[in-house]
Amino acid sequence: MNKHVPQSEFKTPTVTTGSLPASRKVYVAGDIHKDIRVPVREIDLHPSANEPPIPVYDPTGPYTDPAIAIDVENGLARSRTAWVKERGGVEEYEGRDVKPEDNGGAAGKHLARAFPVKNRPLRALPPSPAGGRGVGGEGPSITAGARFDAPSPGSAAPRRPLPQAGEGRGLLTQLDFARAGVITKEMEYVAIRENLGRKKKLLNAEQTVAMGESFGAAIPAFITPEFVREEIAKGRAIIPSNINHAELEPMIIGRNFLVKINANIGNSAVASSIAEEVDKMVWAIRWGADTVMDLSTGRNIHNTREWIIRNSPVPIGTVPIYQALEKVGGIAEDLSWEVYRDTLIEQCEQGVDYFTVHAGVRLPYIHLTANRVTGIVSRGGSIMAKWCLAHHKESFLYTHFEEICEMMRAYDVSFSLGDGLRPGSIADANDRAQFAELETLGELTKIAWGKGVQVMIEGPGHVPMHKIKINMDKQLKECGEAPFYTLGPLTTDIAPGYDHITSGIGAAMIGWFGTAMLCYVTPKEHLGLPDRDDVKTGVITYKLAAHAADLAKGHPAAQLRDDALSRARFEFRWEDQFNLSLDPETARDFHDQTLPKEAHKTAHFCSMCGPKFCSMKITQDVRDYAGGLGDNEKKDLERLSKEGMSEMSAKYREMGSALYLEADAVKKANGAL
Amino acid sequence: MNKHVPQSEFKTPTVTTGSLPASRKVYVAGDIHKDIRVPVREIDLHPSANEPPIPVYDPTGPYTDPAIAIDVENGLARSRTAWVKERGGVEEYEGRDVKPEDNGGAAGKHLARAFPVKNRPLRALPPSPAGGRGVGGEGPSITAGARFDAPSPGSAAPRRPLPQAGEGRGLLTQLDFARAGVITKEMEYVAIRENLGRKKKLLNAEQTVAMGESFGAAIPAFITPEFVREEIAKGRAIIPSNINHAELEPMIIGRNFLVKINANIGNSAVASSIAEEVDKMVWAIRWGADTVMDLSTGRNIHNTREWIIRNSPVPIGTVPIYQALEKVGGIAEDLSWEVYRDTLIEQCEQGVDYFTVHAGVRLPYIHLTANRVTGIVSRGGSIMAKWCLAHHKESFLYTHFEEICEMMRAYDVSFSLGDGLRPGSIADANDRAQFAELETLGELTKIAWGKGVQVMIEGPGHVPMHKIKINMDKQLKECGEAPFYTLGPLTTDIAPGYDHITSGIGAAMIGWFGTAMLCYVTPKEHLGLPDRDDVKTGVITYKLAAHAADLAKGHPAAQLRDDALSRARFEFRWEDQFNLSLDPETARDFHDQTLPKEAHKTAHFCSMCGPKFCSMKITQDVRDYAGGLGDNEKKDLERLSKEGMSEMSAKYREMGSALYLEADAVKKANGAL
Repeated sequence: MNKHVPQSEFKTPTVTTGSLPASRKVYVAGDIHKDIRVPVREIDLHPSANEPPIPVYDPTGPYTDPAIAIDVENGLARSRTAWVKERGGVEEYEGRDVKPEDNGGAAGKHLARAFPVKNRPLRALPPSPAGGRGVGGEGPSITAGARFDAPSPGSAAPRRPLPQAGEGRGLLTQLDFARAGVITKEMEYVAIRENLGRKKKLLNAEQTVAMGESFGAAIPAFITPEFVREEIAKGRAIIPSNINHAELEPMIIGRNFLVKINANIGNSAVASSIAEEVDKMVWAIRWGADTVMDLSTGRNIHNTREWIIRNSPVPIGTVPIYQALEKVGGIAEDLSWEVYRDTLIEQCEQGVDYFTVHAGVRLPYIHLTANRVTGIVSRGGSIMAKWCLAHHKESFLYTHFEEICEMMRAYDVSFSLGDGLRPGSIADANDRAQFAELETLGELTKIAWGKGVQVMIEGPGHVPMHKIKINMDKQLKECGEAPFYTLGPLTTDIAPGYDHITSGIGAAMIGWFGTAMLCYVTPKEHLGLPDRDDVKTGVITYKLAAHAADLAKGHPAAQLRDDALSRARFEFRWEDQFNLSLDPETARDFHDQTLPKEAHKTAHFCSMCGPKFCSMKITQDVRDYAGGLGDNEKKDLERLSKEGMSEMSAKYREMGSALYLEADAVKKANGAL
Repeated sequence: MNKHVPQSEFKTPTVTTGSLPASRKVYVAGDIHKDIRVPVREIDLHPSANEPPIPVYDPTGPYTDPAIAIDVENGLARSRTAWVKERGGVEEYEGRDVKPEDNGGAAGKHLARAFPVKNRPLRALPPSPAGGRGVGGEGPSITAGARFDAPSPGSAAPRRPLPQAGEGRGLLTQLDFARAGVITKEMEYVAIRENLGRKKKLLNAEQTVAMGESFGAAIPAFITPEFVREEIAKGRAIIPSNINHAELEPMIIGRNFLVKINANIGNSAVASSIAEEVDKMVWAIRWGADTVMDLSTGRNIHNTREWIIRNSPVPIGTVPIYQALEKVGGIAEDLSWEVYRDTLIEQCEQGVDYFTVHAGVRLPYIHLTANRVTGIVSRGGSIMAKWCLAHHKESFLYTHFEEICEMMRAYDVSFSLGDGLRPGSIADANDRAQFAELETLGELTKIAWGKGVQVMIEGPGHVPMHKIKINMDKQLKECGEAPFYTLGPLTTDIAPGYDHITSGIGAAMIGWFGTAMLCYVTPKEHLGLPDRDDVKTGVITYKLAAHAADLAKGHPAAQLRDDALSRARFEFRWEDQFNLSLDPETARDFHDQTLPKEAHKTAHFCSMCGPKFCSMKITQDVRDYAGGLGDNEKKDLERLSKEGMSEMSAKYREMGSALYLEADAVKKANGAL
């Protein structure tokens, strides 16, 4: 891989490009929408394996396609603008001017360079006089009311013919289209992605599903575009896809799809720069992040975000209250609906795909946190709590929730309803404050659905293992199966420096129980701002947790990669083991620390046991042996297991010492003799 | 901490000594046995916390007691010899001579230096003519038959008065004494350890227990010596404690006690040395390993083990078949009962506390592995499978099992019945081969119990999350609640380099479900031999997994440390956060990477959010606010939550900006301006 360094001024971000080891990016075309090209990463195996390449989910974007020239100064290709425009119902407009406070008043040498290219934003056409709120009279022949109802299982409209140009007037969000029976390009795109390169059902797919325990999730053997549409119409899944994030490669978040992971990046008032953050974003998706949240605070928030979105093929989420707070000088009491509203528009126009909105932190709940061990630990939650206390007023996020919905709908920004009262310690898990907020999030979910806005729900936090399923079940019940998006949860408080692991345990479990996306935790959690290495460690940890959840849920294709890697392990195809792993570089590096010689890459043993003790090798004997057993011999074995042992022939004695490599020859090659 | 370097020749192992940060080792005396001194580590908190020190379990041995001089050439003090002798029933004898094959025939410069001190071993007195097998006629007045029966719940003899000198004739193992109603020094020692410094029941202990989900485990609010005795008598717990491991600080393994962890060390034919292995042992217990297995292969096995045991305060486990195989030149077919028997005696005399014996790998089961993805992955299992195949005979470990029991009983070596057919991949989990062996292990458990030998059962391996509980439940059923001791399990195969995490997930879960001890997995699993850093990472990962399990089971004292750390976090006592964590060095290092200045150790914010956004700080407002609420105001809040918001007074406005530190002042101190 190469560090891509454009020939321009000092502050231009540099990012990592190039294929992953033994990997090719292939593109799969759509059946309904012939022009979509869905990336799949194929990992080639050694010819001796005699196996086809293993297809894996590929969120890495154009950065791993050697055929695409990367220019961070220009951003990625804006293909999705055409998709949005051809559906109609949108207008291009001048957009809001960038104001000094958008960058925290930074000026002179403290002001980071703006992204060089300016795009005019799109938004939904204003509602025509004949239509309902936000719905044009030229829309499809379904009632406005039907679209505004909360989705419920089974209520989705049947699939309709493809929309004609301009038909989309009055329909804007993926939820709108799904309810109207329209399969968008985004929907077919994610259907293809979710099938991991499969063109049709696996022969044994039903069996695989049956082998998992899905706790009510229902992952089909093969994901069709129509299934995607139904899941979105029911509110059980979302495709976060702001119409202004034209660089996006769509992805889906829902319980009946692959478990996804999010990586948080973002500078703070104290540390980090734009260049570092753009690099971290590309680095995070290289290792598997499905979405990225930009949690920047301090100065230059606007410019940082613009560089990130323009270069991001994955959905970008933000917490708009952070920037709103910067605009009022960091004084929570000085926040107002007007400042917040202006910030939403700013970010909608930039192309943020989902907003964390802590609208469930209501004044009446705040005193419920007073006796907690760690009070309120969510930044957004504590800001709103402080505002509510200072004014002794209900949160403006709650009182203005419908207006927020209408603004977000006009750009198809999805809600990530924030868990501002999540527990920050084992002691506070599943308490009344947390669950009161969750109940309110359920209420808000139905309002947002009524407005045609896609919704997911954020969850904790710190939860001991025995309380995780209770939390998941309550979320499903209160929020009508809207996707759950959890931070960890951390299963103990006593391991700072290892909270990617304390939380990876909880993440794997809650992913199994039904969480649709897991927000990563890095080793620096509670201690400092994650650097590049921490981002990678966090992403890989969460990829493995999400994958463990997919396996346990019985996802029909998840185990293919495990099986391929295990076969490579059994056959001592070291290169294939490295290449099939989530982090080929680290796997290879660890192997080489003990047995660095190239010859050992084909050695039929490893340094764990040395050549004489290799159990994998011995197992080959077993296979040969069992393969040679006749029916009578098998019966003898049955008898033996019942009657105890007696002498039999010695005809198996020939399976002897020829199987072993010469230990001394190996040690010599390794310099040990 | 200091690296202790004795003034002697080059090859003397050096080990890490010195207190852990802010920690003191205190000793608690026994009530029944006044002369036992049980170590507890107390972590002192900052005076501003106004909290007593937090007591934590301390497996670190004398290495963290500054009052004890460490001399690796002499080994640790052999206090337990007196305990064993005063119980009687043992004899000192000359012991077996070390033979060249014990060290793999190593000679000259390849022969590692022998441990400088030689001790005469102890063993059970031979059975007197009047008694039953292994039971002297002068034993306590219970029938021999009662002692040889398999333990069953409720069948334990009532507690008896303390044994008189010499009364122990005919009683040797902890299981013997427990059944006879005798509370040994080891039993009282572990009872005190398990209470984590508590002298009596916590006031809220019952409530805490009730809050967990223990799946049938029954951890009492306070552990008494009598409870320990009962659990051992029932076979539900073991104290691995070879009478020749006189350096041992006893510990207990059982479902109704704290979840323990084991660290594997040991050189291989290809890499590592004695000095490294002794250092790794001390290093592993410094970070929390409760037992250590020496899995050395290749040359110098005898001498390596002697250095390790003589310097180990924790139980040492081995897999004797590894050494037996070395003695026959690495040719599995050449193994014999005689060679194995001789190896057992050698290791019994040295003081190994538990033996992994793969006696469940029976000839009739071997063909069951033929269609597996990864066949047989246990080294011991594959060696025995190869022997069985080559001779087409039942395993000599199975056919000689009673003799093995009698030998182990004479030294009180515990069984760790090996899972030689454990799954090595997700695909092979919970298959017929694995469960057939587990059923045989249940049968062998009852035989061992009948001989008075303590038993635990080894478990897998690679198991997806949804199959973990099935495995745990089957173990409890088949093996009569004998303690389960599992390797991980790994919950996916696709993350080599991160298998401490893929397995930490499974370990936390199976620990919660009832596993008594978790065998660690290091980041090098499947790739190479773990070095010192890997050992530490593996130990910390498994400590946090075991602790997460203790929390979920509702252990009455487990959450004290989480709560103390969370309070420190909430109050920005950074030093206390570091000191209370499992790895204070890493926590401090990570913090200092972003905010290195000493002043920031008392700063009321961290680099994650910077000073303006600190949610912990804001929560202080909430607490002040709620504390000031009268009953009427609380009623107002109730009303608000039902009726929506109306204006109220502005009297809370004074809770303002004075709470925040100056962001610029901080950035200046940090060199950012």
